[in-house]
Amino acid sequence: MLKLIKSRRSMRKFKSDSVPEELLNQVIEAGRYAPSGGNNQSTHFIVVENKDILRELKDLAKEEFAKMQIEENMYKSLVHSITASKNGDYTFHYNCPVLIITANKKDYGNNIADCACALENMMLMANALDLGSVWINQLRWLNENPVILAKMKELGMADDERVYGALALGYADTEDGLPVRKPLDRTGNVVTYVK
Amino acid sequence: MLKLIKSRRSMRKFKSDSVPEELLNQVIEAGRYAPSGGNNQSTHFIVVENKDILRELKDLAKEEFAKMQIEENMYKSLVHSITASKNGDYTFHYNCPVLIITANKKDYGNNIADCACALENMMLMANALDLGSVWINQLRWLNENPVILAKMKELGMADDERVYGALALGYADTEDGLPVRKPLDRTGNVVTYVK
Repeated sequence: MLKLIKSRRSMRKFKSDSVPEELLNQVIEAGRYAPSGGNNQSTHFIVVENKDILRELKDLAKEEFAKMQIEENMYKSLVHSITASKNGDYTFHYNCPVLIITANKKDYGNNIADCACALENMMLMANALDLGSVWINQLRWLNENPVILAKMKELGMADDERVYGALALGYADTEDGLPVRKPLDRTGNVVTYVK
Repeated sequence: MLKLIKSRRSMRKFKSDSVPEELLNQVIEAGRYAPSGGNNQSTHFIVVENKDILRELKDLAKEEFAKMQIEENMYKSLVHSITASKNGDYTFHYNCPVLIITANKKDYGNNIADCACALENMMLMANALDLGSVWINQLRWLNENPVILAKMKELGMADDERVYGALALGYADTEDGLPVRKPLDRTGNVVTYVK
């Protein structure tokens, strides 16, 4: 378990090959078995494999980010999304063959945390299956944007739900199709012991 | 991996036995290797094993919850914490021998999500080691409470950090010391396919 946890890496370059249904089902199942606040089980997994929809989501996000203004103390990755979109070239989902969007009830206090646990489970499961994956935050940042919200509802999201994260999933675009798992610097994440 | 993910359960009854250092270190390492927004690595793990401190945290939380008023549409688990505390008998951490508190920068947009990923990794690692664990939200709900905030700073939390979750960890209080892993109903967590 620790080996699988420590060898997981964010993967941002995907082959166009689709993910076999059997593997995809295992990744989704891993997400569904994540814990939830009070066993609420309200995470909604929206699994997008349709290439036209993926292209449309990419274009819509780019257009909406391009309209936004950069503010002081803005989250640095959001600043990057806005800047790249204004420059006209931005693909938030890295052209992954599968995008698993995690939505949850907007008025539920554990919505972000529950989606994060589901996403972490799916990232670990993907790693165990030699698939690459990366956490995608862009649709969460746009989750009250009217254009993106309307599109998400069109895809099956309920009126009282919002997006709290997503996972780009696929085969790594490397020679052997395996994610690169270089040694990782872990000098952050301080630990304080109270003995 | 899927077996370990699917057999994880929230465990709320702990033996008083401490967790051997070697196992505890593996759980913490699993948490430290969780992904973070922009590889920020700012999760701060505060590992409390001191029995006096654990008792003090329990008493302080109970006192502070007892002062709170129940509001409309309040998160149901928070309502329970307040009600039980007003009734004078409430142990938010289930008398676990180890409480791992996850803090993060208060002005960082991915603080809750990063802590959730770290907690999920630790829950899975605990399960792989036959330890029991359960997500603890109470110190997050009180993370702007002056009494709890002052105590957390005394325990080593930085001024710009807040608590976004915690893990109660220990041996299950069952005959064999193993967590009970009954079949789990997973009728929630709807999946929508966009093919």
